[in-house]
Amino acid sequence: MSDEIREALEKIFSADSDVYRQRGFQRRVGFGERPAQIHIDLANAWTRPGNPFTCDGMGTIIPGVQRLLAAGRAKGIPIVYTTTAYAVTDGPSPDMGLWHHKIPVEVLKLGTDAVAIDERIAPEPGEHVIVKKHASAFFGTNLASMLRAAGVDTVIVTGVTMAGCVRHTVEDAIGYGFRPIVVRECVGDRVAGVVEWNLFDIDAKFGDVEPLETVLDYLEGIEPFSASPALSAETTGAAAETGRG
Amino acid sequence: MSDEIREALEKIFSADSDVYRQRGFQRRVGFGERPAQIHIDLANAWTRPGNPFTCDGMGTIIPGVQRLLAAGRAKGIPIVYTTTAYAVTDGPSPDMGLWHHKIPVEVLKLGTDAVAIDERIAPEPGEHVIVKKHASAFFGTNLASMLRAAGVDTVIVTGVTMAGCVRHTVEDAIGYGFRPIVVRECVGDRVAGVVEWNLFDIDAKFGDVEPLETVLDYLEGIEPFSASPALSAETTGAAAETGRG
Amino acid sequence: MSDEIREALEKIFSADSDVYRQRGFQRRVGFGERPAQIHIDLANAWTRPGNPFTCDGMGTIIPGVQRLLAAGRAKGIPIVYTTTAYAVTDGPSPDMGLWHHKIPVEVLKLGTDAVAIDERIAPEPGEHVIVKKHASAFFGTNLASMLRAAGVDTVIVTGVTMAGCVRHTVEDAIGYGFRPIVVRECVGDRVAGVVEWNLFDIDAKFGDVEPLETVLDYLEGIEPFSASPALSAETTGAAAETGRG
Amino acid sequence: MSDEIREALEKIFSADSDVYRQRGFQRRVGFGERPAQIHIDLANAWTRPGNPFTCDGMGTIIPGVQRLLAAGRAKGIPIVYTTTAYAVTDGPSPDMGLWHHKIPVEVLKLGTDAVAIDERIAPEPGEHVIVKKHASAFFGTNLASMLRAAGVDTVIVTGVTMAGCVRHTVEDAIGYGFRPIVVRECVGDRVAGVVEWNLFDIDAKFGDVEPLETVLDYLEGIEPFSASPALSAETTGAAAETGRG
Repeated sequence: MSDEIREALEKIFSADSDVYRQRGFQRRVGFGERPAQIHIDLANAWTRPGNPFTCDGMGTIIPGVQRLLAAGRAKGIPIVYTTTAYAVTDGPSPDMGLWHHKIPVEVLKLGTDAVAIDERIAPEPGEHVIVKKHASAFFGTNLASMLRAAGVDTVIVTGVTMAGCVRHTVEDAIGYGFRPIVVRECVGDRVAGVVEWNLFDIDAKFGDVEPLETVLDYLEGIEPFSASPALSAETTGAAAETGRG
Repeated sequence: MSDEIREALEKIFSADSDVYRQRGFQRRVGFGERPAQIHIDLANAWTRPGNPFTCDGMGTIIPGVQRLLAAGRAKGIPIVYTTTAYAVTDGPSPDMGLWHHKIPVEVLKLGTDAVAIDERIAPEPGEHVIVKKHASAFFGTNLASMLRAAGVDTVIVTGVTMAGCVRHTVEDAIGYGFRPIVVRECVGDRVAGVVEWNLFDIDAKFGDVEPLETVLDYLEGIEPFSASPALSAETTGAAAETGRG
Repeated sequence: MSDEIREALEKIFSADSDVYRQRGFQRRVGFGERPAQIHIDLANAWTRPGNPFTCDGMGTIIPGVQRLLAAGRAKGIPIVYTTTAYAVTDGPSPDMGLWHHKIPVEVLKLGTDAVAIDERIAPEPGEHVIVKKHASAFFGTNLASMLRAAGVDTVIVTGVTMAGCVRHTVEDAIGYGFRPIVVRECVGDRVAGVVEWNLFDIDAKFGDVEPLETVLDYLEGIEPFSASPALSAETTGAAAETGRG
Repeated sequence: MSDEIREALEKIFSADSDVYRQRGFQRRVGFGERPAQIHIDLANAWTRPGNPFTCDGMGTIIPGVQRLLAAGRAKGIPIVYTTTAYAVTDGPSPDMGLWHHKIPVEVLKLGTDAVAIDERIAPEPGEHVIVKKHASAFFGTNLASMLRAAGVDTVIVTGVTMAGCVRHTVEDAIGYGFRPIVVRECVGDRVAGVVEWNLFDIDAKFGDVEPLETVLDYLEGIEPFSASPALSAETTGAAAETGRG
């Protein structure tokens, strides 16, 4: 993006921020106490060259995600990756739904290397890889339920694309009752401008956009993640005398 | 229900429980630390005579719910009521969906006294009345999101009907990551047997069926409900320096 | 189930049906024009001996499903199988959510033979295998969206267990706006009585329970399934002149 | 928005479109055969001056929506309005979830004039007003289910705000399997630029942005909306012999 265009965007953002602040938007949702990480579509089709879905900025995004993974693993918080992949890409009932009528999702075949998570940030045992069919990590998946059962209250979001899957995920996250934190250096896209304006919209309305260092500091400060308090105090022994009609 | 039939059901439940226990079913999900109450369809169409939806057992259910409400209000836990009501009951796009092709939901008109919560257990300010269109209190409603945002981990369920809305609500509740507790004396239906066999199925697989006194004891023992810890520590002042690309 | 107990259940069902009919329940939702088949959890853990999840009745269920598959494939309708399987069964954020606190889902490991669809009714290319985490085939999955995109209006349901996944699926199906048809001979469970009473509840309120022969006749009579009319008339060429700001 | 800034945005959109087209994005999803209209948050808080939520452009949006309503009503298609409103705006379990931590939703009180649909485009009997709690018209509501039951395949979307509720609605719509059509002249917002860049993102990935005249022509050309074919052929008489165990 040229300096001239960046300057034009900054001018818009500044004027818009004035309106938002006068009206009480752009508040801070803040960090909670039990975070999870959600890394959106950092699979080879997006992180490596040569695919219609290839994104820019991996030189910054991948090292940033590596640092987040190290910090999150040190505290044992839930780590979730998503990829977007399809098992049935022709015939009258594809699992793409209608999305191939807008974008080339037919190239994202389930089980291929293209949709595997980039090995530079490979999942470890006990971490989650969710295969989604739509933009949001929550849409048509078990993610919200799983995080709720684990007592998660905050989701730290990275990945691609900012104008697609990351944005939809963040909009859903606050709807589902999780505090969304988007890591500024760790999100990307494939065309100019869309990272900037989508971060602007999100920070105004749906989640907090925070620098990587702030998020790393936060992760360093939290308690290690354990089974939620309620779940660690098992209610055994009561089985015999409970319940039925 | 005749003694003879009750005896036959008990015989089935006993044999089935043997199988379930050998195989590791009928475990206890137990109580968490931050409960909400969900009172299903205790509106006049179900609690008063003369409606196709009228249920039995209100002589026990209403006083039980009154005691639960008192105990829950003393601790400030979220209280949720549901009713089932429709704004558009004819034409090609009713908000009943397809359900009137199975049961007479067309009599449940939004805004009528029939679908108002029974005044003996009337909602107080700050409590929630959710108008649902389908059986489960969670289906097509904001309930799971609202409870998650409030940090709820347990749902105490009462109401009617056991074979319909209560059961579907409990199945969904554990799916969404909430511990379902069904209050045995506070659920009902309108035909014989179905309370018993649905409680049996639920206790085997989806939630714990507990006596009213156990639930009241539990409510007496919990901490008062407050904004979830994360939400009480507001992150103010950080607004100026965050976020945008 | 002994004759004596079956007789007791029939007596209850008969009395209950009298009440339901007087009140306008037990209506017929009927067959639509664009059906899909959903075969619930007919994977080896349920269809073969020796697993906590093993069910009865496969001598009838499997041949029935084979006939349905042949009839459905002849018309090209969407065929969906589900299995229930988990990638993370320990630690503080299992993808089982809370369900292992009720039933032994920890034995259902993703990628094992136990959770693969029974080879006697093996999926063919272009058919769908959905890995679900909860009881309903719709819960936390892309199923409703995929069927809607394909223009499906009716779901023909088989599988196990009747008191668990089949029932929850049917309750959800009518909620999502699909006509649920349960094939009487093709559903099963692992303890006595629960097939009967759950079919009774479903037929009263959520979907039609129909004999296999009726469903086979219906499938023989429908038009071959093709891309929905709207989707076959592609709107090409308009791209250049549409849309932006 | 100044000419200079508009020019800068157009320059970005043009460069980005080149990339998108080379890679197979910006396809047309097209119109289906059974549309519904969804008018997002055209209630007084958004359409009239003096509210934090007040939007610009009503001089164009309201007359455009009036024309769409006339055209849609002439064909009897489902008309859906949304508003965003809250019953419980303080205490530990507000129905705002966490959203008031980002934007001033606490001013949107259920039952006030502010959240009533603007009377210039007032709903008529048989039309739907959905009270939502989050950005998308589909999120935590019965909308997708109701439209599915009515056999709808296309959603024509108008309203505000483009950077919030309209965008999230469109992202969800294609996920749920409906073809989203956004009416270019009938969407708005309250700060500069965001209509343009959100329309750009949507048209690239989630739905078609079409001029009002194109949508009016389409509505004029469709068949009158009736109960879906399957639902008009009732399957009566079969009740006696069906179903139960």
